[in-house]
Amino acid sequence: MLDGDLYAFQDLLSEDEAAVVRRVRDFLDAEVVPIANDHWARAEFPHHLIKRYADLDIAGRPGSNLLSGWLALEMARADASMATFYGVHAGLAMGSISMCGSPEQQERWLPQMASFGKVGAFALTEPTGGSDVAAGLRTTARRDGDSWILDGRKRWIGNATFADLIVVWARSLDDDQVKGFVVPRETPGLTATKIENKIALRTVQNADIVLDGVRVPSSSKLENANSFKDTAKVLRQTRSGVAWEAVGVMLAAYEIALKYAKERQQFGKPIASFQLVQDLLVRMVGNLTGSLGMCVRLAQLQDAGQYRDEHSALAKAYCTTRMREVVGWARELLAGNGIVLDYDIGRFVADAEALYSYEGTREINTLIVGRAITGSSAFV
Amino acid sequence: MLDGDLYAFQDLLSEDEAAVVRRVRDFLDAEVVPIANDHWARAEFPHHLIKRYADLDIAGRPGSNLLSGWLALEMARADASMATFYGVHAGLAMGSISMCGSPEQQERWLPQMASFGKVGAFALTEPTGGSDVAAGLRTTARRDGDSWILDGRKRWIGNATFADLIVVWARSLDDDQVKGFVVPRETPGLTATKIENKIALRTVQNADIVLDGVRVPSSSKLENANSFKDTAKVLRQTRSGVAWEAVGVMLAAYEIALKYAKERQQFGKPIASFQLVQDLLVRMVGNLTGSLGMCVRLAQLQDAGQYRDEHSALAKAYCTTRMREVVGWARELLAGNGIVLDYDIGRFVADAEALYSYEGTREINTLIVGRAITGSSAFV
Amino acid sequence: MLDGDLYAFQDLLSEDEAAVVRRVRDFLDAEVVPIANDHWARAEFPHHLIKRYADLDIAGRPGSNLLSGWLALEMARADASMATFYGVHAGLAMGSISMCGSPEQQERWLPQMASFGKVGAFALTEPTGGSDVAAGLRTTARRDGDSWILDGRKRWIGNATFADLIVVWARSLDDDQVKGFVVPRETPGLTATKIENKIALRTVQNADIVLDGVRVPSSSKLENANSFKDTAKVLRQTRSGVAWEAVGVMLAAYEIALKYAKERQQFGKPIASFQLVQDLLVRMVGNLTGSLGMCVRLAQLQDAGQYRDEHSALAKAYCTTRMREVVGWARELLAGNGIVLDYDIGRFVADAEALYSYEGTREINTLIVGRAITGSSAFV
Amino acid sequence: MLDGDLYAFQDLLSEDEAAVVRRVRDFLDAEVVPIANDHWARAEFPHHLIKRYADLDIAGRPGSNLLSGWLALEMARADASMATFYGVHAGLAMGSISMCGSPEQQERWLPQMASFGKVGAFALTEPTGGSDVAAGLRTTARRDGDSWILDGRKRWIGNATFADLIVVWARSLDDDQVKGFVVPRETPGLTATKIENKIALRTVQNADIVLDGVRVPSSSKLENANSFKDTAKVLRQTRSGVAWEAVGVMLAAYEIALKYAKERQQFGKPIASFQLVQDLLVRMVGNLTGSLGMCVRLAQLQDAGQYRDEHSALAKAYCTTRMREVVGWARELLAGNGIVLDYDIGRFVADAEALYSYEGTREINTLIVGRAITGSSAFV
Repeated sequence: MLDGDLYAFQDLLSEDEAAVVRRVRDFLDAEVVPIANDHWARAEFPHHLIKRYADLDIAGRPGSNLLSGWLALEMARADASMATFYGVHAGLAMGSISMCGSPEQQERWLPQMASFGKVGAFALTEPTGGSDVAAGLRTTARRDGDSWILDGRKRWIGNATFADLIVVWARSLDDDQVKGFVVPRETPGLTATKIENKIALRTVQNADIVLDGVRVPSSSKLENANSFKDTAKVLRQTRSGVAWEAVGVMLAAYEIALKYAKERQQFGKPIASFQLVQDLLVRMVGNLTGSLGMCVRLAQLQDAGQYRDEHSALAKAYCTTRMREVVGWARELLAGNGIVLDYDIGRFVADAEALYSYEGTREINTLIVGRAITGSSAFV
Repeated sequence: MLDGDLYAFQDLLSEDEAAVVRRVRDFLDAEVVPIANDHWARAEFPHHLIKRYADLDIAGRPGSNLLSGWLALEMARADASMATFYGVHAGLAMGSISMCGSPEQQERWLPQMASFGKVGAFALTEPTGGSDVAAGLRTTARRDGDSWILDGRKRWIGNATFADLIVVWARSLDDDQVKGFVVPRETPGLTATKIENKIALRTVQNADIVLDGVRVPSSSKLENANSFKDTAKVLRQTRSGVAWEAVGVMLAAYEIALKYAKERQQFGKPIASFQLVQDLLVRMVGNLTGSLGMCVRLAQLQDAGQYRDEHSALAKAYCTTRMREVVGWARELLAGNGIVLDYDIGRFVADAEALYSYEGTREINTLIVGRAITGSSAFV
Repeated sequence: MLDGDLYAFQDLLSEDEAAVVRRVRDFLDAEVVPIANDHWARAEFPHHLIKRYADLDIAGRPGSNLLSGWLALEMARADASMATFYGVHAGLAMGSISMCGSPEQQERWLPQMASFGKVGAFALTEPTGGSDVAAGLRTTARRDGDSWILDGRKRWIGNATFADLIVVWARSLDDDQVKGFVVPRETPGLTATKIENKIALRTVQNADIVLDGVRVPSSSKLENANSFKDTAKVLRQTRSGVAWEAVGVMLAAYEIALKYAKERQQFGKPIASFQLVQDLLVRMVGNLTGSLGMCVRLAQLQDAGQYRDEHSALAKAYCTTRMREVVGWARELLAGNGIVLDYDIGRFVADAEALYSYEGTREINTLIVGRAITGSSAFV
Repeated sequence: MLDGDLYAFQDLLSEDEAAVVRRVRDFLDAEVVPIANDHWARAEFPHHLIKRYADLDIAGRPGSNLLSGWLALEMARADASMATFYGVHAGLAMGSISMCGSPEQQERWLPQMASFGKVGAFALTEPTGGSDVAAGLRTTARRDGDSWILDGRKRWIGNATFADLIVVWARSLDDDQVKGFVVPRETPGLTATKIENKIALRTVQNADIVLDGVRVPSSSKLENANSFKDTAKVLRQTRSGVAWEAVGVMLAAYEIALKYAKERQQFGKPIASFQLVQDLLVRMVGNLTGSLGMCVRLAQLQDAGQYRDEHSALAKAYCTTRMREVVGWARELLAGNGIVLDYDIGRFVADAEALYSYEGTREINTLIVGRAITGSSAFV
């Protein structure tokens, strides 16, 4: 059981699921945690690990949403960058194909992605449209015989410097609706440039993408991705994944802080024995227990098919807000040592900022929930 | 389904349990809500309702902790004062007898308490010892033949101005350990004086109690209440009840705020359509969903017998902290109208302060959790 | 020096000003503090004190904004209700006449108001327009020969149940602009009904006012109150007064909490010696020192004539937000005793809610500042 | 006037002081801001700028505390790393000599430090003692004839990789009291190793120092540094400098956020026109105005000689806490772009963590204030 799982939520997993979780956790502890700071510091992706993720044999596997959520938690607890790598590949890219692809398309791409033979990316956000991604999407798709021609710019596209397949969202000039296309990264006209100088999730390779007359065959268009509503279905699913990742980050921060508090001596005793330090620790464990309770219920709603946009928007906004507090308290507890990467907490503090903003800012997710509960849209 | 139960936690109740909840909710909406403000304003207890609570036939019934938690939620959603009345009677007083009484003692008192033929109170807190109730308990119990003589002072004792039976905790002069006694309020030497000028839970009748040579037969001593550890078992159970009550208060505040936001017009449209108002509402629903997720898991731990002091201490501290934010945001949303009792929110704002402090302040519950997670006690 | 004035801001007053402050503080400590809880509990105004306020000889006196701000602070530190009574009379009502009246009008009304021979009120807010008071103002003023006929409804009008003169703001049917009128309360057609069941500032007598064909002579129209811009000038001034009152409330809450913390014993020592209690106290004194620093600078800007709407809007929003935290921490520190009026803090907790919302909610003041700093209006 | 100086605090500077401020600001804007991100990213110190700081001719100059505070603000607004470099040299190192050195010692070292001919560092903190620096100081000074022998370890010593003179604090084996010594970095036995992998203030070169039988002549002992009380005087002064730096960081964050909000378009208009964005901006400007009000008053107390430890401890704790909120809101406002160094805010977010913890954590400064206001020490 994890230190921070005070309410033993993990016991809600079935035995088989718990076994998967243990296997993944062991892998993460053994192979990801030890290299996380170093790759983060150098902003380099550990390509040698892709094969090892394949060996886990978890991507694209059928299973409960509780299990997939918990796996996201474990991955983020080890390294939010690698959790993001996995989430982009298995959640956003494979999820798009799985939710919007025809059976043939699924068969064409999913098996090789499940084995990481092909790594995926997901290109929705644009330089001018983050929050306003639906109405503001400017990348165009023009039909030309049995092909589509894609033109435009994308920004922040995770994995895109090395991914094999990029799911690109573009507005069709035919019907002004948003469509999805599976585009091999090597396609002529597509340029992906690494975004440098990141201060968060530095191990994740995000790209600015230029699409300049990129021609793809009609069979590349996801058959059931015909308007932004279809895109939204994918986001609804992955947003809940971010909520789980936020819990993973909180767990990591809590464990680091607790361990430090027990070891660090001041005034002749461990700082864990001071009221002000216990206050920080208990606030942390409160936030993470409440967030975990929310995520677990969310997974149940997903499994029951009762899942709406506002459910994942709320979890994403709430859990990442709580996470931001938690990493701040943990960093505070480590005082000076908290700003040296070697003590681990610095990486989580930094990465939390990315999680807080990606897949919908707090503001946008607030307005999604707000619209659902009030019946009034307040986006503009 | 309640407006604020966005994640449909209520669906976790069994059908039978849901029927009980509906019945209780209907009763509360019909008979408690309409009179709540008036009795609160006059600081008078609605004695006519005792019979109606008896009719509900829920006190002392076997059932899941999820059900009893949810009932506490419903009661607090209607009126935190009446929820407290019920909690003192069915939780603290009946709970003490049920957990610490011999089978004979249980048989002697519980049936008539279940039918509200006898109303209970619970006298632990003293004028000089709130947080420091264990070591600081000064009320004494002196053995005298087949009797015990109780001397001391108690403070904040809910229901005690009219209760029939008061569970009194006192330190035995024999072994310096805390024991529990069931004392009829009419016993000579016991004086209960109503605490006036309360600004919260005004409908609850709290008393200052003086015990001046109060003699009770040995059979009044709860057989299995032999040290403070036994008292703590009762508190562990009732503290989780306060967490549920906090969620009930949040639900009420949210419903009041949401309804007001949809009706109140400013600048030519309902204020629910403004970003700043949606922000308040979404923060509210976030807090209550996380808190509910925590309480539900807590009930599962209780049902599974895996329940420790720190579990309820965390829930009590966390949920009441979140509640305080929620009622503040709701009050803010109603602006000026929020300070008139008729709009209901004022009562919940005020009552939240009592819930925040009773059954262990945030500080004490923090230190209980802190001790459990760090292994170091920081009380002194 | 006040306990909470850690940075000795009071030393910024001139000797003469400090003497006035001492005189007022002595009066408040001697005559207002002792009766504050009792009148609050009964929701009755202490009419016998009006004469004593007159004796102070401070209303309408020329003087620095630092002095008048500090006097508002002192009054609120004693009792926020009486500070509000004074603020409505000397700030809103006299201020309207002083800023918008002709010299003759000032001469007619101000001297007898300065001596409290006539008590003033200020009727701007309406049942349907709190935040949207400018565009949403519905009370009408119709010219009829040498009279004006006023029709409409007002809400929340402080002092209006007993005031002699009410400054009524109404929209002229001539030019659709907002004008101000000085209306004797006894004028036929004007009905002022006390708002009952308040949970905050209970000593203040707020009224719902109905104006039904109220006829006043043309000389009652404030000559320089010709559009809402003139009203706004008055509000700009009084809003800064509320910021000072908020500091006064913080000072009171801090003093109560500090005194309690030094006296209350738990675990064998004063609770002031626990880290968690010092944390609350230091947060309090931080909030109030920062707020006081803001108010002092604001007064300097006022004295220098460099004062804009956003300055007072920011101080009002910021200081009342900080105040709300401070009274909450103080209440928390007193635990159970914090909910009994006799310990004083309960009154300040309750009253803080009114200060937080009156003279512009946090939301409206935020949008006033927001417009000034961004150049974009976001009210609608 | 700076954008964020809404209350025109800068006008409180004299004309001469304002001229110095403008000169320094121009230098910072022209020479520090343009290189700040690059050096931060590479964790390298811009040695070429030392000469330029000397040209400013401000170090060690007599002047008001308002001026020196405002200069710290300006420096931090440009780059918190360079502000720290300057603060260590001119505040901690020169301040130690100036407050604790004899006239001869001052004359020996201060002029060449004022001209940056010699750069200073300040070695107090040790690996095992951050918060507990007084009682926990383990570095020893042993008298040996006309020399002192220093042994021990220091951590976090800013500038110490390249500084010429290091003020080292050590416990005398004679009287067990803490003394200060001016030690040339090149002295045999002193080794300073750069701390790598920092995530905050990366441009500052902090060192771990080992003192292994470091022999210095008696004339190196600061004559008036004879116990930790003397050290504390230096800290009291520099802690207020950190409060000013925190305001500088807030100003920078606010300016970055405001500019971005006006330029960034979403949903067809600048995001500055959305309520949720204005909310963030107004919270920022509130925090910084209150903090600035506190710092300005603190400078007045310093100038008046009324300055106590708790004054600077409160300002340090309060302003850095508010700063942490402000940089978080600014980062949130920039969403994804907020995590790229090029948008500047990322650097301030990261650096804020160091400011929050150095020169006394929030916890330690809270307990310093707490002791002063309650009369009870709660450190242990």
